[in-house]
Amino acid sequence: MKLFSVTLAIALACCATAMSQTDQQNIIEDFKPSTLNQPGKEYPQVNSQGYARFKIEAPAADSVRVSLGLGGRGGTKLTKTEDGFWMGTTEGPMDEGFHYYHVNVDGGTFNDPGALNFYGSVRWESGIEIPAHDQDFYALKNVPHGKVEQVLFPSESTNTSRRAFVYTPPGYTENQSKKYPVLYLQHGWGEDETAWSNQGHANLIMDNLIAEGKIEPFIIVMTYGMTNEIKFGGLRNFDITPFQTVLVDELIPYIDANFRTMADKSHRAMAGLSMGGMETKMITLNKPEVFSYYGLLSGGTYSPEDIKENADVKLIFLSCGSKERPEAVKSAATALKEAGINAVSYISEGTAHEFQTWRRSLHELAPLLFN
Amino acid sequence: MKLFSVTLAIALACCATAMSQTDQQNIIEDFKPSTLNQPGKEYPQVNSQGYARFKIEAPAADSVRVSLGLGGRGGTKLTKTEDGFWMGTTEGPMDEGFHYYHVNVDGGTFNDPGALNFYGSVRWESGIEIPAHDQDFYALKNVPHGKVEQVLFPSESTNTSRRAFVYTPPGYTENQSKKYPVLYLQHGWGEDETAWSNQGHANLIMDNLIAEGKIEPFIIVMTYGMTNEIKFGGLRNFDITPFQTVLVDELIPYIDANFRTMADKSHRAMAGLSMGGMETKMITLNKPEVFSYYGLLSGGTYSPEDIKENADVKLIFLSCGSKERPEAVKSAATALKEAGINAVSYISEGTAHEFQTWRRSLHELAPLLFN
Repeated sequence: MKLFSVTLAIALACCATAMSQTDQQNIIEDFKPSTLNQPGKEYPQVNSQGYARFKIEAPAADSVRVSLGLGGRGGTKLTKTEDGFWMGTTEGPMDEGFHYYHVNVDGGTFNDPGALNFYGSVRWESGIEIPAHDQDFYALKNVPHGKVEQVLFPSESTNTSRRAFVYTPPGYTENQSKKYPVLYLQHGWGEDETAWSNQGHANLIMDNLIAEGKIEPFIIVMTYGMTNEIKFGGLRNFDITPFQTVLVDELIPYIDANFRTMADKSHRAMAGLSMGGMETKMITLNKPEVFSYYGLLSGGTYSPEDIKENADVKLIFLSCGSKERPEAVKSAATALKEAGINAVSYISEGTAHEFQTWRRSLHELAPLLFN
Repeated sequence: MKLFSVTLAIALACCATAMSQTDQQNIIEDFKPSTLNQPGKEYPQVNSQGYARFKIEAPAADSVRVSLGLGGRGGTKLTKTEDGFWMGTTEGPMDEGFHYYHVNVDGGTFNDPGALNFYGSVRWESGIEIPAHDQDFYALKNVPHGKVEQVLFPSESTNTSRRAFVYTPPGYTENQSKKYPVLYLQHGWGEDETAWSNQGHANLIMDNLIAEGKIEPFIIVMTYGMTNEIKFGGLRNFDITPFQTVLVDELIPYIDANFRTMADKSHRAMAGLSMGGMETKMITLNKPEVFSYYGLLSGGTYSPEDIKENADVKLIFLSCGSKERPEAVKSAATALKEAGINAVSYISEGTAHEFQTWRRSLHELAPLLFN
């Protein structure tokens, strides 16, 4: 299956963080607690150059390592201090934005007790935030805020109540006669329905875009893509049917019944990051009557042959980080445009297969939807 | 301040879990993964008697302990297995319901990588669930479900947007002309606004009560009580004013403007657990014009002299676990009743200063509200 292998090669291209071999003597000592620390915790810290510094208590341990800092080469080894703590600084600056990590204590995998936890890699991982030059677009500001609603929707096909998070924009409550378009937004492998709010700040990105008058308000729906029971080796046998049934036959009707949506194809978008992009591609192609706007964020590409002639696609948005495979994304968008399809590509400068790429991608995608 | 010291003595009476010295040879080997494990994780496990068993990987560690299992006496010491894991079982059965815990690895405090995390003790702790004989009342069932909405409300007094979670009952969306009473529900020391949904299952307790026709639907609002910067020694100097301002002058007007509430005293309740009970007591007494229904869950008592003659209190609900100070709660309710105040006490059998007490307390309190 060609469609499959191309998509997967991109979706799973998990770039190791590139590290410059900066001399540690040039580190600027302006370290501050990461904004994702647990309340009151001093470590981990980050400095203005993007270095991360860790401090973890384990007085009787023989070895403490942090998984961040050297890509695939074993992370950052911490050194024992006299007071029973282990400390260390990444060898080089980290990419801007959010990073998952964990701590290895004497061979066991644990989280950093100082950091908040985020679901990724099929576990609750520690998270750290390297301040980005463009962090303003996802900052918590004094603007009207939408809500993020947890709903439990009935799912006959899986015989349970399933969870989704629904972003409703500011003004949703007041304007009781207004109806809204909907974006269905998927997380990646190892993550779940919490990722786009917790790691991605999707709600704050929307609040800020709306406050600046850059977009017309719409609803975002985030649910679990049923991706995490899959092993990498098993991807060739990935069956989209169970999740497609949940999404199209159960969740969409629930949302249309319980929120004031514009419940038709021309006001419905689907996008996803990484494996969520793969799911988006499969479902939008299987169900051309359901969605008009398609977005793949570090999640592969469409070719013109994928799109049926009468599909009436309003937009295909393709993106990735500059440290992924930007040429593949750009050339796919070019080919789609040459075939008469409205395609847009976006490359996030200086980022890899990580959430800063996807925050920026959502920020670029949102103004293009539902026009 | 008498009011203060009595309240605190009860609110902070953190009972050690009582353990019977059961012979470990009588342990029934029907252990199953705790329902609060991370997806796919086999450990921790619990058996039908309430024993908990832990298995944690740390091949090079010298010592691994779990904080659960022996009250204040150091928890459960794990034993190294040949394959690099540490295993152990609590010396006795645990109380039914939810317990916080953490893992000590070579002198450092970490979480169990198998368990989900819950905010308590001013950190994200591991959580484990001992199946309770009455767990049906907070189970996720195939009934209509309300929503839990995350709102970010403006707070001038603290110069930020603050988070609250709002439970809206099933039917809230459909019945656009219906208005609802509101319960403001506070967490305890070390916890935050996530506790009542995550640990408490407040939303499921409500969904189930409503489905059974046992209560008229109402809204629940949960926000952070600004309790966690306080050290135990500093409690005498606790100033309720900052939180009272946020709650009464900022959050309540926001909720009344953004949700379909019955925005008057007779349709407004406040309750809290432990230190949230202390806050409830102080705020309800300071602001008798705001709330009609008061609830202290393991959070102290009111005396008849506390209540002003024209306060028009509709209900005072006092509760705790049978392993706390049930006599204090019962005698306080009796004294209030003798003074002509509608007071109800509830004792949770076999539980201590833990969330099973508070789940049950909410389940008992809800049908008494707004009648």
